[in-house]
Amino acid sequence: MKQHHLDFDVLRQWTIGVREAYQRTLEQYVNIPSVSMEPERKGDVLRQAQAAVATLTEFGANQVELVPTKGNPVVFARFETDPSAPTVTIYNHLDVQPANEPEWTSEPFRFRHVDDRYFGRGATDDKGPALAALFGARKGLDDGARINVQILWELEEEIGSPNFAEALTTLGDRLRPGTVVVSDTIWIARGRPAVPAGLRGLQTYTFTLEVGATDQHSGTTGGAARNPVAELAEVAAACVDAKTGRCKVPGFYHDVVKPTKQELRDFAGSGFSVAQFMKDHGFKSIRTKDKLEVMKRIWALPTFELHGLVGGYAGPGVKTVIPPRAELKVSTRLVPDQRPEAIARLVAKHVKRVNKDVKVTAQHALRPYRGVTSGPHADAVKRAMAFAFGRAPVFVREGGSIGAVVTMQERLKAPVMFLGLSLPEHGYHAPNENFDWEQASGGMIAFAAYLHELAAMEK
Amino acid sequence: MKQHHLDFDVLRQWTIGVREAYQRTLEQYVNIPSVSMEPERKGDVLRQAQAAVATLTEFGANQVELVPTKGNPVVFARFETDPSAPTVTIYNHLDVQPANEPEWTSEPFRFRHVDDRYFGRGATDDKGPALAALFGARKGLDDGARINVQILWELEEEIGSPNFAEALTTLGDRLRPGTVVVSDTIWIARGRPAVPAGLRGLQTYTFTLEVGATDQHSGTTGGAARNPVAELAEVAAACVDAKTGRCKVPGFYHDVVKPTKQELRDFAGSGFSVAQFMKDHGFKSIRTKDKLEVMKRIWALPTFELHGLVGGYAGPGVKTVIPPRAELKVSTRLVPDQRPEAIARLVAKHVKRVNKDVKVTAQHALRPYRGVTSGPHADAVKRAMAFAFGRAPVFVREGGSIGAVVTMQERLKAPVMFLGLSLPEHGYHAPNENFDWEQASGGMIAFAAYLHELAAMEK
Repeated sequence: MKQHHLDFDVLRQWTIGVREAYQRTLEQYVNIPSVSMEPERKGDVLRQAQAAVATLTEFGANQVELVPTKGNPVVFARFETDPSAPTVTIYNHLDVQPANEPEWTSEPFRFRHVDDRYFGRGATDDKGPALAALFGARKGLDDGARINVQILWELEEEIGSPNFAEALTTLGDRLRPGTVVVSDTIWIARGRPAVPAGLRGLQTYTFTLEVGATDQHSGTTGGAARNPVAELAEVAAACVDAKTGRCKVPGFYHDVVKPTKQELRDFAGSGFSVAQFMKDHGFKSIRTKDKLEVMKRIWALPTFELHGLVGGYAGPGVKTVIPPRAELKVSTRLVPDQRPEAIARLVAKHVKRVNKDVKVTAQHALRPYRGVTSGPHADAVKRAMAFAFGRAPVFVREGGSIGAVVTMQERLKAPVMFLGLSLPEHGYHAPNENFDWEQASGGMIAFAAYLHELAAMEK
Repeated sequence: MKQHHLDFDVLRQWTIGVREAYQRTLEQYVNIPSVSMEPERKGDVLRQAQAAVATLTEFGANQVELVPTKGNPVVFARFETDPSAPTVTIYNHLDVQPANEPEWTSEPFRFRHVDDRYFGRGATDDKGPALAALFGARKGLDDGARINVQILWELEEEIGSPNFAEALTTLGDRLRPGTVVVSDTIWIARGRPAVPAGLRGLQTYTFTLEVGATDQHSGTTGGAARNPVAELAEVAAACVDAKTGRCKVPGFYHDVVKPTKQELRDFAGSGFSVAQFMKDHGFKSIRTKDKLEVMKRIWALPTFELHGLVGGYAGPGVKTVIPPRAELKVSTRLVPDQRPEAIARLVAKHVKRVNKDVKVTAQHALRPYRGVTSGPHADAVKRAMAFAFGRAPVFVREGGSIGAVVTMQERLKAPVMFLGLSLPEHGYHAPNENFDWEQASGGMIAFAAYLHELAAMEK
């Protein structure tokens, strides 16, 4: 079935040889707290960018650039094989989530290597996969794949890629069109490769209410004083049925495209297990135990989610303070054909109707993405993953959002394929995030093979 | 009208002489962060207790004790004049609220003296009034009041006096019965002395919900995952109408005794101003602008209040995390004849009905207090305050709670009177808490006079 002459056992042996170098580079990257959400980490984000430039130069890129933007730069590199050959662009991101969770059992920004597992913020999202892709691509080129490789490493993915389009504009003609492959997605389970054919979009918000100037004593003022925490809780309850998760904002579901029968069949055959899902994420209970219903909810339906509330007292015990203001952190995950701007308008209108003093500030917007599940590119991904991991992937969807995907699809005028390497147990955005050698080494082989598949496709 | 021969101008002159000593002692006390709510401040609380022992010894108390309890000790002192004379017990507390509010414009535990104003956590609640009472009592004794004085300085008032009764039991016969005066209440406005004839009680709670083990990514799990922040918001909305403050817990208002017509007349004549109330507390808007309605709500009606929510993300921006657990900080202020235990049962039952997985933990309970507004003790307080501040006080109520009051009333078998010195602008439990020399010096004179009034009463 494969379109190339790579030998799995030879590649396997090669991964053992580069393992030390892979780990050393991943350690260097994980030790840089490149948290794009925290302004005070700006210097660390730039250090990560510079480390990436050094790595790409060392890997023999013909061209390496730090593309400036209003925000963090984008790292761009090009490995030129033959100007007449096709180009594949490999996208990853090197910024990471904050790591303030108390459940971390070791320093989140200190790489820790336990047997085959690599711990630290960014290990699986997305530094580990980024480096696996790079090692694999280099190997693919070294083994003669007639293809040019472009690397795009973003540093603002975790804040919704606000300046990624600007970077692509700046690159202009230096960025050559062609197929794109993104390695920032999660399988259903270990040993069951999965490729998403769609991503949820995202619109985040803050709901804020300010009724005074300073904290007040609830004995002295309680009863007459407005309570912003209580008012925001009331607004939240008017926006979402917390038990079912159903959003109460009028019109919210209007543009939702239901999954096709074929998609639902694919979901059913994906190997998804409710028990495994609960185990991987540490859930004691979830909203439904119906397998297909769980998959629909996490992949094909939008959400209205509360992420935290700022305001008042959060220490030990109860301090009976009435805060002057409170802020609710809110998001809506969106599915095709919901549009972030339209949803943001519906949400703001509904909140105003419930409480006119609450200010809704729409934050980042990401459109949902609907990918391809058939055709030559889909087949190439399937074959490369089957070669590397011994089992063909299933097409599912990804509940998360990658802002850059829609942008690249439009700018590079090419399909965006996914070749993700992360597992549910790796803890995306969670404490004790980790990656492992099985996924890293398999990923290297998959990327080497994918380059050869693409090169063969163009013949 | 006064029952003694003290001369106001002479006392006024005397206050100027002791001002330096008062300020020095207040500075020493404010600089000790005796936050009873924070376990790590235990050492500071004990330092404050030892400083109090030193002060009382220096002031010539015949007996000074640190009374041990399961929690923080109670400071007890006795100034003996004549065993056959009556005894007055002066109650204050020397523990303070936490001071984590970002609005502090200077270090909260660093005493700052600007003109006649004294800044720092505890300046008005209750270290400043405690010391004014002590200076005044010493002066009253020095000027010949035939009365014995007992001092009770608590160090757990801000956490609801959980061990105060235990300390009184330990003191046993060494604590002699007699009238009690508490100096821990707030006037309506500067120049308008007010004496509360009742206190609200309090029952605090935490509502907790745990559905998982670690933070999860809302893209990966959102829709199927339960959201504890949203579920607690829904519970909160089912407990209180946030706009009006009306508690929705069935039976909550059943035992509320409405204020009498006389009380409402007293409220109306108290000098309370809605505009001033809003200014003092920095409110932009409140639930009602009706003056009598505001007073009823803050003094004579119970509340259901939310004080904060722990769980999820509280940093800058929006992190789309679904936390495994969340905790809501809740309180109910109670009025006569509501009983904390009964209200706690109603609240727990209602919450269970709304969401069976939410765990309600009742924290501290304080019974509401109904005091006296007529008779010889009430008259003595009125005369002492009129003498010191040039204007007779009005009887209002206090919206806050002082746990020790009901305990002392029962143990000392005597009425508990209030001689508070704080003003709304001093910022009880608020950032930039302060006290001032006008209230401190007037308070000293009022306490000196009150001792003479009590001594004369017994003749």
